[in-house]
Order: sequence, then structure tokens, then C-alpha cells
Amino acid sequence: MSREVVVIEGDGIGREVIPAAVEVLKALPVDFEFVEADAGDATKEATGEALPAETYDLAADADATLFGAAGETAADVILPLRDAVNSFVNVRPARAYPGVDAVRPETDVVFLRENTEGVYSGHEDRLSDDLSTLTRVVTSSASRELAEYACEFVEDGRGPAGDPDEGFTVAHKANVMRETDGRFREEVLAVAEERGVDADEELMDAFATKLPLDPSQYGVIVCPNLAGDVLSDLAAGLVGGLGLLPSANVGHDNALFEPVHGTAPDIAGEGIANPTATILSAAMLLEYLGHAEEGQRVRAAVEGVLSDGPRTGDLGGDATTDEVTAAIVDRL
Amino acid sequence: MSREVVVIEGDGIGREVIPAAVEVLKALPVDFEFVEADAGDATKEATGEALPAETYDLAADADATLFGAAGETAADVILPLRDAVNSFVNVRPARAYPGVDAVRPETDVVFLRENTEGVYSGHEDRLSDDLSTLTRVVTSSASRELAEYACEFVEDGRGPAGDPDEGFTVAHKANVMRETDGRFREEVLAVAEERGVDADEELMDAFATKLPLDPSQYGVIVCPNLAGDVLSDLAAGLVGGLGLLPSANVGHDNALFEPVHGTAPDIAGEGIANPTATILSAAMLLEYLGHAEEGQRVRAAVEGVLSDGPRTGDLGGDATTDEVTAAIVDRL
Ligand SMILES: CC(C)[C@H](C(=O)O)[C@@H](O)C(=O)O
Ligand SMILES: CC(C)[C@H](C(=O)O)[C@@H](O)C(=O)O
Repeated sequence: MSREVVVIEGDGIGREVIPAAVEVLKALPVDFEFVEADAGDATKEATGEALPAETYDLAADADATLFGAAGETAADVILPLRDAVNSFVNVRPARAYPGVDAVRPETDVVFLRENTEGVYSGHEDRLSDDLSTLTRVVTSSASRELAEYACEFVEDGRGPAGDPDEGFTVAHKANVMRETDGRFREEVLAVAEERGVDADEELMDAFATKLPLDPSQYGVIVCPNLAGDVLSDLAAGLVGGLGLLPSANVGHDNALFEPVHGTAPDIAGEGIANPTATILSAAMLLEYLGHAEEGQRVRAAVEGVLSDGPRTGDLGGDATTDEVTAAIVDRL
Repeated sequence: MSREVVVIEGDGIGREVIPAAVEVLKALPVDFEFVEADAGDATKEATGEALPAETYDLAADADATLFGAAGETAADVILPLRDAVNSFVNVRPARAYPGVDAVRPETDVVFLRENTEGVYSGHEDRLSDDLSTLTRVVTSSASRELAEYACEFVEDGRGPAGDPDEGFTVAHKANVMRETDGRFREEVLAVAEERGVDADEELMDAFATKLPLDPSQYGVIVCPNLAGDVLSDLAAGLVGGLGLLPSANVGHDNALFEPVHGTAPDIAGEGIANPTATILSAAMLLEYLGHAEEGQRVRAAVEGVLSDGPRTGDLGGDATTDEVTAAIVDRL
């Protein structure tokens, strides 16, 4: 039975990198049915809605979704889509590649970001002309679910070191947010202890100092929603930018894959966007749908091209999106 | 009339770096009366309270306070002390010094961090066995007060570029925290516009990617409380660690100065701690109390010693705290 993969280009370079990733997927012996759907700024202009109910439903019912990028409407698209696939964890690997300029070439980390609560709860109030509040939410259930995933991730050797003994680091701000991050921290550490997985902890501000100083001391990092957003983007800066970073929003029987980068309006439409982050997101999609070997083939092809193939402008080359994609397909 | 400066060593290397900074202050032609007060882990052990009411009152009534570091009780000490001096802004310069190893030697930025609200409001609730919440607070009044300070700071040429035309950058997450950070962003940009100060903006996650990639594009950065905490600590990682970073918690007629680093338990008691961050905090204290010229003398002496004087172990040298302090006093 073929798997249904919803494909949403979105805006800007999303329209260039998504077709590139689909081309890579189509070159593999996997039986996916691709269903196109719309979202983003252009969709809002045309229909009044950044994320039409039809797109939400398609993503919710699919086996997986591959999303490009959205412009001004990014939050209106991506947050409901994460909800559509019931994703409880955002998986964000950040590694430097040989030959690619990086502030910290030894960076090789994976963030496991809580994907449903924290300041993303959506509860905000304008209480007076002077005062607004936001209700930051942390539950034991979501914290434990994330921690269970982190333990499996580590046990399966999916961390950068490949070694389950490396365990994970939980980054939080429980010295200030004692009740909410205190709960998060406690539950995550308790699950690790129950499962015999090694876990240490770091205050998120101290982590932000230490990661640039010595990224080699970290592997898998587990964090609340906004901490994961900011700290993984920091790691992106250390590996040389957003052009190479994939991500997965994982639920129990559905998932959403997206490059970490945005719409890059400065180069959109020119056919010169780097498709790597989206192609690596497609590799994560393959692995999620049980095609681990094909996922590995895509990764290897990408690494080959990064080391001695054509490069787009962001990596100092002058190749087009199509040329890079063709080179990757060639190596599959 | 002499000014009263409360001095709180706290724990760990606080007991070494505070005396060093006081020695520097005493070597200058300024008329300060130093009043010692206690806070921190050891104080809690001895008295049951990390921050005795007496210390709080002394800091509240003084002209300024110089604080070292506290261990486990850091939050219990520093947050009430910031409140005692009614500080509405935390000023955190982060610059790399010639000759000091830095991930990004071109870093030269100053964070102006909102110092009273955001997730630091202290309102948290355990609503059930599963659920905890925190009320994140943003007011127009605190946002505008911070923005007014930022405008003055820039107008006075106190930014790294020294050029008022450089303006400032406001970093926020208003695409997700639309009501709270939306209010913050709007008020800060409105004040800048009213005063004719140039202001641009950046999402805090994008900022965390871009700062390591190219710190030279930023100067003064204005942010909400937790964003300022994390992003300034990130900058600390780029300039080579916490050993050189001073900070000021500024109120209208009182202020609190502290190094950004902690108690460094691994080296505490050995007399080898780097006193630079605290001595630079003392320079900020001098400037705050109207002794701009003396503040500048301290800075120049510190820079001289950093470039060709003795160094502590964290900077690759083997000098003691006393030797570095004596070298700085020598150059005043
Ligand atoms: C667009 C925005 C809502 C989103 C987030 O904050 O999660 C983005 O920054 C990301 O990390 O995918
Ligand atoms: C100790 C802690 C409460 C404090 C903060 O979060 O403000 C510290 O990290 C700082 O930045 O001074």
C-alpha cells in the first residue's frame, strides 16, 4: 500500500526546494503518493487564509507531510500544521560538514524540542491598556512523552555519538521558572532514571555560553519549546547557517518535515536556493516511514555532493538548485 | 559627601574578585564609603536566609552595590537585589579583547535587557498533578522605560560604535507571543520613532543564528528579560567566556553591579580567579556615580593588562588574582 505524503511548497524558495526534494524521493524505490497542498502568504492573499482547512485536513490524514517555508504567515502555518500531525517533539539535528565553512566545525548535536506547550500555548490576554500576560503551560504528560522519545532516541544510537552511553542533556531555566521548568526538568530526569539513560542538565543561559565555546561536549539536548527554538538556531549559526538544517515534527502516527530556514526573499525565484536542508528533511521523512536504508542513501549522496560536488551561492559556489539536486540524484 | 557603596562578596570566587575590585576602587581619588553585607549559600547556611533583610535594606538605601556571585541560591539573591535597587534595565556589554582567544573576535555588543518582568514575574501555579502554569507579564510602561534608556544610551554615544546613528536592534519573539512581545516590540519601536533613534528588529531565534555568523552587524540590542539573559550569555560564549563580562542593573537613583560569571566552585579558594569582570563592573559603577573619567582609567588599565600584562589561568596564563589586580592598579 502506498503512503500518502502531503507536499506544501509555501512561499519564496519553498517553491524551489520542495520540488527538488520530491525529485530525490521519486528517484528512490519507495511507493509514495504525493498530494500537493497550499499554505502561506500567497495562499492567504488568494483565499483569505494562510492555512486552508483543506490543507490542515490533508496533513492530518496523511502518513507524512513535507513543508517548505512561509513568509509573514509562518507562525499561522507552521504552528497549526504541527498540531495537525499531533507532533510532540521537534527533532533538530545541527552538524557541520567537512569542507563547509563553520564557526564551529566540530558541532554535531541534535535538539529534541518539546513541540506543543511552553509559551506556545496561545493563551495571551490584554488585561489593560498597560498590561498583557501570557500563560506558559508545562504538563508532566508532555514532558514525560518527550523524555520517553529522548530515551528511545539515545537507546537506538540515533544521537550524534551513536553511543547510548552518551545519554542526553536537558536544558532549562528551572532556577527562575521553578514550578513550570521545575516540573519539566524533574519529569525528564525521572524518566531517564527509570529507563537507565544517562542524563545531565544545564541552565539554558549557561548552555548558550558553553555551546559556542565547546560544542563537542554536547550530543542530544532535550528542551522546552522556546528554549529549543532559540538554542537550535544558535547551533545553526555555529555550523554555518540555516541552509543545511533539516527538522522533523514527530507524532505517534504522523509527522511533518521542514527545513529550518525561511523563504529567503532575497534570492527567491532565481533558482539558486540551496535544497540541502529540504532534501535532508526528506531523508528524515524516509526514515520515519520505515525506509531507513533509503534515508541513509540520501544522506550519503548529500554528503558526497557537499564534499566535492556543485554548490549553491550560500556555500560559496555558483551552482543552481537544479544542478545540486541532479548531482544528489546521481549519487543515490 | 561620600557615596555609600554596599559590597557583597557572596560565595566561591566572589570572595576573591570583590576584594580585588574594591582594591582598584580604593586606589582612585573617589570618596566612597564601603559597607559590607552578606548573601548567598554560606549566609543561608548560617542564618537560614540567602538574602537577609538587612542586606536587602542596605542595598536599597545605598548609592550603589557591588555584588560578586552566589552558588545554589543565586536566583534567591540576585532577583531580590535587582528589585531592591529598582533596576529596570540590565546593561550587559560583551566585547572581545585583542589577544584574548575568542570564537568571534569581532564581537562588540551591548545588551539592554528588561529587568523586571517577562517570565521573571514570579507568578507560577501548580494547577493539578499534571499541569503548571507561569504568567508572563509585559507592560507598556516597563517597555517604554527600557526604550527611553536605550535611546539615551545610543544618543550619548555609549553604544559600541559610539555613533548615535547606529541606533539599536530590538530582539523579540512577537510572531509567537503576539500580545506580550507584540506590546514590547510596538512600544520600543514607538519610543525610538518618537525620539528619532534608528531601530530595527530581529526575531530572537534568527538573532541567535546570525550573531555567531556575523557579530559585526550588531551594536546595541534591546530585549525582554529572558531573551536578554540567553542572548547575552550567547555573546559571552563568542568573546571567550564569562571571565571578562561585567554587568549593571540600573535604576533611577540606585544600581547594582555584578560580573556575569558565577561562583566557579572548581577554582574557588585558590586565589587564581580572574578579577577582570568584577573590576570592569566597578568601572561601570564609577561611571554610574558620575566618575566617568575614573571609570575610563580603570577600563584602560584593564585593557593594558589584558594585552601585555599577567593573566589568570582561564586566559592561558598562570598569574594569581592578586598579581592581576596589582598590575591593573599599577596602570591606573
Ligand atoms: C515560525 C515560528 C513560529 C517557528 C517557531 O518559533 O517554532 C520557527 O521559528 C521554527 O523554529 O520553526
Ligand atoms: C541567577 C539567575 C537568576 C540570573 C538570571 O536569570 O537573570 C543569571 O542567569 C543572570 O543572568 O544574572
